[in-house]
Amino acid sequence: MRVDGAQMRADFDELASIGATPAGGVDRPSLSDAHLAARAWFRGRAAAAGLETRADAAGNESAVLAGAGRRTLLLGSHLDSVPSGGRFDGALGVVAALHALLAVQHAGVELSVALEAIDFTDEEGTLVGLLGSEALAGTLDPESLQAPRGGRAALLAGLERAGLREDELTRARRDPESLAGYLELHIEQGPLLERSGTQIGVVTAIVGARSHSLVFRGAAGHAGTTPMDARKDAGLAAAAFALAAEELVVRDFPGCVATVGDLRLEPGAYNVIPGTATVALEFRSPEGGVLDALEDALLGRAQSEAAARGLELEIAPVGRWEPTPLDPGVCDAVEAAAEALGLSSMRLTSGAGHDAQALASVTRSGMIFVPSVGGLSHDPGELTVWDDCVNGANVLLWAALALAS
Amino acid sequence: MRVDGAQMRADFDELASIGATPAGGVDRPSLSDAHLAARAWFRGRAAAAGLETRADAAGNESAVLAGAGRRTLLLGSHLDSVPSGGRFDGALGVVAALHALLAVQHAGVELSVALEAIDFTDEEGTLVGLLGSEALAGTLDPESLQAPRGGRAALLAGLERAGLREDELTRARRDPESLAGYLELHIEQGPLLERSGTQIGVVTAIVGARSHSLVFRGAAGHAGTTPMDARKDAGLAAAAFALAAEELVVRDFPGCVATVGDLRLEPGAYNVIPGTATVALEFRSPEGGVLDALEDALLGRAQSEAAARGLELEIAPVGRWEPTPLDPGVCDAVEAAAEALGLSSMRLTSGAGHDAQALASVTRSGMIFVPSVGGLSHDPGELTVWDDCVNGANVLLWAALALAS
Repeated sequence: MRVDGAQMRADFDELASIGATPAGGVDRPSLSDAHLAARAWFRGRAAAAGLETRADAAGNESAVLAGAGRRTLLLGSHLDSVPSGGRFDGALGVVAALHALLAVQHAGVELSVALEAIDFTDEEGTLVGLLGSEALAGTLDPESLQAPRGGRAALLAGLERAGLREDELTRARRDPESLAGYLELHIEQGPLLERSGTQIGVVTAIVGARSHSLVFRGAAGHAGTTPMDARKDAGLAAAAFALAAEELVVRDFPGCVATVGDLRLEPGAYNVIPGTATVALEFRSPEGGVLDALEDALLGRAQSEAAARGLELEIAPVGRWEPTPLDPGVCDAVEAAAEALGLSSMRLTSGAGHDAQALASVTRSGMIFVPSVGGLSHDPGELTVWDDCVNGANVLLWAALALAS
Repeated sequence: MRVDGAQMRADFDELASIGATPAGGVDRPSLSDAHLAARAWFRGRAAAAGLETRADAAGNESAVLAGAGRRTLLLGSHLDSVPSGGRFDGALGVVAALHALLAVQHAGVELSVALEAIDFTDEEGTLVGLLGSEALAGTLDPESLQAPRGGRAALLAGLERAGLREDELTRARRDPESLAGYLELHIEQGPLLERSGTQIGVVTAIVGARSHSLVFRGAAGHAGTTPMDARKDAGLAAAAFALAAEELVVRDFPGCVATVGDLRLEPGAYNVIPGTATVALEFRSPEGGVLDALEDALLGRAQSEAAARGLELEIAPVGRWEPTPLDPGVCDAVEAAAEALGLSSMRLTSGAGHDAQALASVTRSGMIFVPSVGGLSHDPGELTVWDDCVNGANVLLWAALALAS
């Protein structure tokens, strides 16, 4: 059994024309008109193929192929995009899920579970982030709706455009007993598969991330009259920390990343020694214990760089996301599917967040990655070679068949 | 012959009450009401002592003690301050100059030259910078008035408040033949005298400075999915450059300074690798040849740090001020005066700009520094111990007497 690659491509291209940008990407922020048009296309395409369609209280849209039993195996991803994003992130997973259902339907096989292709609301976080999948898993925190990333006004406007009610979002929760698992095909958004020439990525975990604001306090001073050895330059302490963080993670924490994404100096003028430097630090690891060790090492190094120049250091945690291990049985099923299809595969972790991390709290969940050309993502130039897209859809189909039996 | 230290202190304190701030400093931006009030106080104090007073077309205010010949030895500084500045920067030099004239007047000595205590307009540059001294020297560029540091509107408002006309400012030019020299007492604004326990600084040169905007261009990217070895992090290249600049100037360019005063990262978020880093670089040296070599070394290092990470680098010069050597004969006179008064002295360069650099282009010029506690300046906490102030005023007086003969 295989997906119909030619028809899948026609559907993918038609979908990519909705919210298309001149640069070749798509602009479909969550619950925007373009996003709602893409969801309408998905519903129409599924209905035209004779699949049952449904939408829940969180706006998640599904196409369902009934099975013999009462449980449902979810295959999903999302149709929203970051502003000026690419065509593959999320959309590939939804189209592939739809075509997995169509392949089973075409084969006339009745599985023991229902197959449901699902498009989750607001994965990217232009409003809240993982809104639809967390609502379905029952982990949506109503607090997070009060001051969402995208702003409260944008959230309310989006919900109204989509005909959704804030006080009913949590009604999208499904009984975990009704779920047979969750499987998602997604582009890697990184360079590992391309670099190693591997066709399929078996995702073993979604990384955890922590972020801290570090404020180095030295002494501002006259850049002309203060000799080099009489300075307490907060900018140089921050610079030394940024380089040390890179060195430390590369040397001692393979598979982890650490990023100084922003650095602000005050007062911030050519002729004044920086008295204050504010550093935006983020680091990620797929393992909680490693994340703890990495945090200790990084913050310890920040302290020692501050002390070396006689500065004060303030550390404020600003974000904390726990690592999510994916289900070993699902990983095995994905790996076996790839092997059976003659495709090379490797196990890796996801450095980005996905709907699968919400689902993992209530049902066995897994993810399949396909290569991103140049590792590029969240960019109109985002590209996955079409053969890789079809390969990924077939692994999704075969792994789903294995999990359904 | 000595200045009257007690009377000088009373005058200094009275002056410091004009534009006084709760933090203990003064706020007298150029041509503000507080600054104009300070100038009125100076004029009144000089007139009450029986000195001739005058003001020129650039607003420079003078007290004059006539001499036998037609030439004039200028003793000066400035009564304007940076916003929320200190009490000593500029004001000490004007009050000391006034008291040097009063000491000569009191002694009943007629010198071969006139002595003129002069308060220059807008030294600090809240409007233009060195406006009065450059007008007197004949080096004021009318172009610099079109887009001044403090803004065109503030300049015009200040000139109007002071009753000055923009088109007449250059009429303040003096014939160099009429000048017998220029001597300025000023606080060091740095830590060298205090650190070495020296009472008097003999200023041999005012440093030159150059500034450049450096833009490192790498690639922005996902901070979670991009492995450490696949990044082109512009922030890290900028950090490496800032540290290298410090190391290089300390190791190879003694007596020079280099400062990264600002550093901006784009896009500037926790979860995005910085694609662009813009660095504000400034460096200073008292010698033009050394400034050239330092510039080559710093910009070469910026290129190699960019190249090491596969980044592009754009360099744009944004400022250039040539070093100003002060007159060796005046330095000798200052040094001899200190020695005759039993005061320790050392030769040093000024890391900050002063009116003396404008005067040096038309007459023999020199400066006397007195210690700044903690090297602090441009701050309400700016302090020079009063004995040091009196010592400086006596060196000013004795050096002036030597130059007058």
